[in-house]
Amino acid sequence: MHALEKILARASGKNRVKAGEIVNCKVDLAEVNDLYLQVIESFEEMGGKKVWDPEKVVFVFDHYAPAPTIKSAANHKVMREFVWKHGIKHLFDINAGVCHQVMPEAGLVFPGMILVATDSHTTTHGAFGAFGTGVGATDLACILISGELWFRVPEVIKIEINGTLLPGVLPKDVILHILGRLGTDVAVYKAIEFTGETVEKFDIAGRMVVCNMAVEMGAKTSYIQPDEKTLTYLKSRGVDIDKIEILQTDPDYEYSAIYTFDVSELQPQVAIPHSVDNVVPVDAVKGTKVDQVFIGSCTGGRLEDIEWAYKILKGKTINDRTRLVIIPASRNVFLEAIKRGYVEVLVESGATFSTPGCGPCLGAHQGVIADGEVCVTATNRNFPGRMGSTDAQIYLTSPATAAACALAGKIVDPREYMEEV
Amino acid sequence: MHALEKILARASGKNRVKAGEIVNCKVDLAEVNDLYLQVIESFEEMGGKKVWDPEKVVFVFDHYAPAPTIKSAANHKVMREFVWKHGIKHLFDINAGVCHQVMPEAGLVFPGMILVATDSHTTTHGAFGAFGTGVGATDLACILISGELWFRVPEVIKIEINGTLLPGVLPKDVILHILGRLGTDVAVYKAIEFTGETVEKFDIAGRMVVCNMAVEMGAKTSYIQPDEKTLTYLKSRGVDIDKIEILQTDPDYEYSAIYTFDVSELQPQVAIPHSVDNVVPVDAVKGTKVDQVFIGSCTGGRLEDIEWAYKILKGKTINDRTRLVIIPASRNVFLEAIKRGYVEVLVESGATFSTPGCGPCLGAHQGVIADGEVCVTATNRNFPGRMGSTDAQIYLTSPATAAACALAGKIVDPREYMEEV
Repeated sequence: MHALEKILARASGKNRVKAGEIVNCKVDLAEVNDLYLQVIESFEEMGGKKVWDPEKVVFVFDHYAPAPTIKSAANHKVMREFVWKHGIKHLFDINAGVCHQVMPEAGLVFPGMILVATDSHTTTHGAFGAFGTGVGATDLACILISGELWFRVPEVIKIEINGTLLPGVLPKDVILHILGRLGTDVAVYKAIEFTGETVEKFDIAGRMVVCNMAVEMGAKTSYIQPDEKTLTYLKSRGVDIDKIEILQTDPDYEYSAIYTFDVSELQPQVAIPHSVDNVVPVDAVKGTKVDQVFIGSCTGGRLEDIEWAYKILKGKTINDRTRLVIIPASRNVFLEAIKRGYVEVLVESGATFSTPGCGPCLGAHQGVIADGEVCVTATNRNFPGRMGSTDAQIYLTSPATAAACALAGKIVDPREYMEEV
Repeated sequence: MHALEKILARASGKNRVKAGEIVNCKVDLAEVNDLYLQVIESFEEMGGKKVWDPEKVVFVFDHYAPAPTIKSAANHKVMREFVWKHGIKHLFDINAGVCHQVMPEAGLVFPGMILVATDSHTTTHGAFGAFGTGVGATDLACILISGELWFRVPEVIKIEINGTLLPGVLPKDVILHILGRLGTDVAVYKAIEFTGETVEKFDIAGRMVVCNMAVEMGAKTSYIQPDEKTLTYLKSRGVDIDKIEILQTDPDYEYSAIYTFDVSELQPQVAIPHSVDNVVPVDAVKGTKVDQVFIGSCTGGRLEDIEWAYKILKGKTINDRTRLVIIPASRNVFLEAIKRGYVEVLVESGATFSTPGCGPCLGAHQGVIADGEVCVTATNRNFPGRMGSTDAQIYLTSPATAAACALAGKIVDPREYMEEV
């Protein structure tokens, strides 16, 4: 069996499961974000009286924090009252950050768990060897009542990545490149395991980036086999790793497909409008004028991402016709970025910081873009209208490329702005 | 003549003006904020071809920065294009802050000038001995074309404030107290001059607070006679004070009314829902449960205000059922607050920082409040619906009181939380 199958087997009380089978699993953590008031409405419509386990439920206000409208403020209010009424342990209010960052930071994510959230980018937690997946409101409401959810055991695709990245080429470039090659439907209702020496060398943030964007290939979930780096991170977050059994894929497991990438010559990549898999090397779109740059979200708002912006922008001033919005993925990221002097340097360079959360990634607030504008962003989606007007153009890049574009006012290769990095 | 009359006389090319007279004045600075796209539309409808003096025009994006909606993003875009087309010198984009803070910081405000802006709180600049007043879009568009505007010379009310404030009582408490006594219409189409030993002792920030809220008494403009403190501030902002003639009120000038206040026993004040002049000592509403606290805006977002929050919250954690949103009034305030360690301490205490601007003060974004919620705020207006739902309750206080309320989760006297201050 694959490690992911072993997770589903254990959670469903079975010895064996196989791809295609439907299993009913106990869920270890259920997260609701502030886009999903419907979870509470469905819970009540289905006659829910109490939450199955208040210790295993998380609410995160990240899409609309602080509330930009009366409607979102009202949604927050109903959610807070639900949390308090049911004694739910984990409420990350408007001062916390993006769910996929605050949950691992709080020590709530661990290898072998099943984490279900009302957010498609829940695949992120494959970086920790968790089975993480996004669901809709009704499924989440069922979990709140029963603590269980059915899954179709997914086939697993193995993506093996080898080679040492060139300086200035980041994990985000790797996953964009893979998306460009494999397309947005290669993994529909399948899981993706990332492996290979490049992935081993990635820090936790880099692993989170590739797992995060697995869902853009249609993946139900993603997986990276936990190693020492994983355990070191988990320990630093207060996870009792001695209590965790790390599951391993059996040597005879047959992947539904195996793709191998050598990224040693990879150039910085850009997903151009209007699809995540419409990927070209940065040279192909060099010179495109840029109105706004965004560095943030569950894909590009970690300390490592902000550090790239810092390294590229230190002592310089962004282009006077380009805006730069930076939103740390969490309060902890913001605090650490302040302590290291990144925030000061970046504000001096012309950047605007906003409240930890994911507002602009989905065009909710904090930097919505207008008709005809071009946005270069370290986030994960460039569909028409994703960040505001359907007539805007969104280019997905690494945070290094994004920062360099803010400096130049146009799309550039970040390596031209890295002399001192 | 009053100094304000001398300003109008000089700007209209007359030797003398008197109250009630209509004069046509040259404007020294015209500011447009991002609520007022109509200025550009009116400019074009009136056949405006070029701006009278691009050096004297300022655009500030503060109410909707960064853009929370496609509409506000589109407004910003049209305004930027107007600024670039007309070679307008001063554009404070989404990374700058509140107009009434960024203009003095940039050295654009000086004694004896006429400053007209599309914002009612333009009375703030009386703190520098400027004639500052708010106008609508059509008036501002006329100024963009002609550089002139008509004014009815206002009667002047003198408010003399004496006494040393008790520890923990702030300029905001003083102006709330005065508002409570004199009401919201005492100065309709009149000017208010603030004078007396208390005002002399106020720092520049404190003077800006009382002048800012003069408009809440209906004042057309406000005035504080410039002194050494004013000149020191102006010099620090790059104003060439040797070129400025400080005008003085003649000893025989007759005020339309004189009010005298002794504030030596003043307690912290609160303007309770739903009027700015519905003012009581804090004890009268002690214990009222608080959902959200806001420290920010042109009234309460300066370094001095954030410093109060820092002093009260350092090493403590805000109430777990109360949110605290802090928005520095400008990028410079934010930078200085970072350098002094205030931001770090406040984020650790549970505060949420957002992009410099004035969003929540007017319920535009960045912390809108829901039905039935109670907000304690260091801002300037508590009308129904001002900060979100018309069913919310807004209490105006000093930043010290606001910070203490965030700590306690209810309305409290800040002096109970000041042991170590």
